[in-house]
Amino acid sequence: MKDDALRLHGDRFWISPYVFSCVVALEEKGLAYEYVPVALDQRAQKSADYARRSVTGRVPCLEHGAFSLAESQAIVEYLDDAFADTARAMPTNIQHRARARQIMAWIRSDLMPIREERSTTTMFYERAKSPLSDKGVEHATKLCAVADAVISDPGQYLFGAFSVADADLSFMLHRLILNGEAVPARVKAWAEFVWKRPSVQKFVAVKRDPYVEY
Amino acid sequence: MKDDALRLHGDRFWISPYVFSCVVALEEKGLAYEYVPVALDQRAQKSADYARRSVTGRVPCLEHGAFSLAESQAIVEYLDDAFADTARAMPTNIQHRARARQIMAWIRSDLMPIREERSTTTMFYERAKSPLSDKGVEHATKLCAVADAVISDPGQYLFGAFSVADADLSFMLHRLILNGEAVPARVKAWAEFVWKRPSVQKFVAVKRDPYVEY
Repeated sequence: MKDDALRLHGDRFWISPYVFSCVVALEEKGLAYEYVPVALDQRAQKSADYARRSVTGRVPCLEHGAFSLAESQAIVEYLDDAFADTARAMPTNIQHRARARQIMAWIRSDLMPIREERSTTTMFYERAKSPLSDKGVEHATKLCAVADAVISDPGQYLFGAFSVADADLSFMLHRLILNGEAVPARVKAWAEFVWKRPSVQKFVAVKRDPYVEY
Repeated sequence: MKDDALRLHGDRFWISPYVFSCVVALEEKGLAYEYVPVALDQRAQKSADYARRSVTGRVPCLEHGAFSLAESQAIVEYLDDAFADTARAMPTNIQHRARARQIMAWIRSDLMPIREERSTTTMFYERAKSPLSDKGVEHATKLCAVADAVISDPGQYLFGAFSVADADLSFMLHRLILNGEAVPARVKAWAEFVWKRPSVQKFVAVKRDPYVEY
């Protein structure tokens, strides 16, 4: 491996929303990288080697030469810092960047009923079979309200130029959209506009292994 | 209110680990700010005004003149970006900053059994009454192993100069330490070293309202 090669350790079913964010950032930047599929279904992330490399034992993990890093939001920011001459993954304006970070952190720490009831396997393998619970509906309503508040135009990215916050918010909304849940027309139009972005489609349209429960 | 005044909306019991991170950053920077206690026990964060201001309705929320922002990690980074001539909350070295972001993101998205079984009320109001569950022990072991891996010297900050990642990791370890759980001596010594930091003590030693369940 070259000293400065990039390797992204991601899940082999391509269903992790956190791997998604990293793939979008790498693609936007036009950086060459190797995708290393980790067999989560065989608990490969529990190996001593993976634990040492990632420090926290989590997927995704980015290797950059001798340095390696886990946590998707840290990886996205690192790519902006380490490859300052490539397209930015995060907005350049300070307040825009702050809001993008807020959206990304919020998506990672709230909305648990949506994440559980409309898991990413229902996006890429088999649609959900049960209606949303009351909690699920409540959180779907909140998600759509926040999206409506931050979207200024359904045909425009949130902060002028595209950023990973667009991708992450669209991804969360697609848990609902792909499962046929009600999403306000304006919010849906925006999410579908972002969904067409080539870096997003790179992950969404990848050829996947047959799914194995784990 | 002055155009560029800083106001931090935090919980009135001073038990939020996310408010903690923001207080540490503000104190380290020597910025003047007003602390606005939000009565979470009266669901004050659900008001239309708070929702509009914070976008996502979460605590903490920082107001900076007309701009306002929620999510603690976004707030900490914003303070570094917006007040570039003050002491930095995050490391300046790119790889150090990346690792600090990883630690902070990990603390916010993993270790749920510790966060539940050793909630922050057990740190500041009443110690936990039950032993850790098996899951709790498993996560406590993982927390201490990760801490041991990133600590180079128990009398030094993780990245040379102090950063909010030191504070956050020490805070998480103090859920165990203050409740008398077993923590390896080296890790405990480091956590207690960080705990003495004046910006940390500003939050830890604040005079608190009597606690009301909510």
